[in-house]
Amino acid sequence: MEKKIRAAIVGYGNIGRFTLDAVEAAEDFEIAGIIRRNPADRGDIPAHIPVVGSIGDLKDVDVAILATPTREVEKHAREILSRGINTVDSFDIHTLVPQLRRDLGEVAKAHGAVSVISAGWDPGSDSVVRTLMEAIVPRGISYTNFGPGMSMGHSVCVKSKPGVKDALSVTIPTGTGIHRRMVYVELEPGHTAEEVYALLKADPYFATDETHVTAVESVKALKDMGHGVNLVRKGVSGNTHNQLLEFDMKINNPALTGQVLVCCARASMRLQPGCYTMIEIPVVDLLPGDRDGWVARLV
Amino acid sequence: MEKKIRAAIVGYGNIGRFTLDAVEAAEDFEIAGIIRRNPADRGDIPAHIPVVGSIGDLKDVDVAILATPTREVEKHAREILSRGINTVDSFDIHTLVPQLRRDLGEVAKAHGAVSVISAGWDPGSDSVVRTLMEAIVPRGISYTNFGPGMSMGHSVCVKSKPGVKDALSVTIPTGTGIHRRMVYVELEPGHTAEEVYALLKADPYFATDETHVTAVESVKALKDMGHGVNLVRKGVSGNTHNQLLEFDMKINNPALTGQVLVCCARASMRLQPGCYTMIEIPVVDLLPGDRDGWVARLV
Repeated sequence: MEKKIRAAIVGYGNIGRFTLDAVEAAEDFEIAGIIRRNPADRGDIPAHIPVVGSIGDLKDVDVAILATPTREVEKHAREILSRGINTVDSFDIHTLVPQLRRDLGEVAKAHGAVSVISAGWDPGSDSVVRTLMEAIVPRGISYTNFGPGMSMGHSVCVKSKPGVKDALSVTIPTGTGIHRRMVYVELEPGHTAEEVYALLKADPYFATDETHVTAVESVKALKDMGHGVNLVRKGVSGNTHNQLLEFDMKINNPALTGQVLVCCARASMRLQPGCYTMIEIPVVDLLPGDRDGWVARLV
Repeated sequence: MEKKIRAAIVGYGNIGRFTLDAVEAAEDFEIAGIIRRNPADRGDIPAHIPVVGSIGDLKDVDVAILATPTREVEKHAREILSRGINTVDSFDIHTLVPQLRRDLGEVAKAHGAVSVISAGWDPGSDSVVRTLMEAIVPRGISYTNFGPGMSMGHSVCVKSKPGVKDALSVTIPTGTGIHRRMVYVELEPGHTAEEVYALLKADPYFATDETHVTAVESVKALKDMGHGVNLVRKGVSGNTHNQLLEFDMKINNPALTGQVLVCCARASMRLQPGCYTMIEIPVVDLLPGDRDGWVARLV
């Protein structure tokens, strides 16, 4: 049997938990351990898994999967790559991807390691589909329609407003890349949904989107981790118009992210030192085992 | 400006014509010429394009796009790869792909050339989507549903039956990878649709599929080159069930094939010597120009 890939997981929030599921379900992986700020807090982590405060406390780690907030990805990746250990993350600020790719690429090459960045579903697997669609229909318009599903960034924004105890912002696709924001708020006494609406329309996060604010008794009672996306492209192949392509997903959000992270951790073992996004990785390398079997089954 | 990729097209049937469209529309390509069995027959080929009987009669060809019948792909590929020229084809007999990949891989490596095989839409771009779906949802069931659209192989089979002057077999998807065959026939006098139906149900091509035969006055009047596919996968990421993925296309069939061939001809210029299917090529390499711009736009 081939040597298993030893993966560490950095962070144990939602994404970390589901990443652990995906590592444990993958026969070519074994879990080296989990890195938490407070390693004494084992939470629900199974007893056979080491929980430590630094990756230096774990043995023979091949790849570290970063399940931290996006803003902390670069710091952790730099430190771990400098030890010659591969990293994978689901960094999700689209506009900052090129810079992160350049910066981590330098560190990775200097230490003979591989970094795969923005390996979630968007950016991530959606990026692969968008790229394929652009290639085979080179002229035309693409739209990415998100939802229905919870937007973490928008929910945090609503929670920051005065009078809001808890909040949930659900993204609803209305087509052609335009989204409606359905906002559910638990209010402090003396505050109203109308008041929150006015604050949101003055915030760049909500200013241009159709927004509806509803006061509810319990935000917690409304939360689910389902999400979705619909990618469409209509355009021209060669000189031929009206080529219609569409990709749809209805998924558990952190479960898909955790699975994509594990796929890219696997791929990192097959890449030359450097930093990569998913569109730069042959899709067959996301799968375990050798290429020949997959060519026979999937081509 | 970068040097353009000089492409030759072998064969000038439906696929050849649409491949020429795609080469002419691609700013990073120029057409080196077209290879036909009878080069004196220029058909509707524009006057500025050389038409020759052998690739040896064309200058500085980087890549040959094989728009020949599938059964002739290997012969042409071997000859052209032996000259150190890359080849791309849309070889479409799924079960024979692994053998062709091994055989052309040897020839390609021996002559420092690249061969990309099965670069159409299925096998081809669908294979990329199937592979991505399998990776991010590792357990579950996938279905490939074809149509509605003309099946060349089934139409040829119907035409071979006694009493049939002309025939069209349209593939209709009924879900879960099961297909209905709608067969339209122009009959010789004294023959009936019922008779053709009986012959088809005795033929392995039609034996297991729901089949309907209708006699028509003109088969030609019914033909269109639209086709479609619907790929679905429902399954498990990590331990989380009910992950739902779907990919849909409604396209002009030879136009999409021609475009995919040109994308893979481009990718062939960036690969190490050997033979590849599309699942082994990073999707970004299907696009012109350097990676950085696409990472910024599409990730």
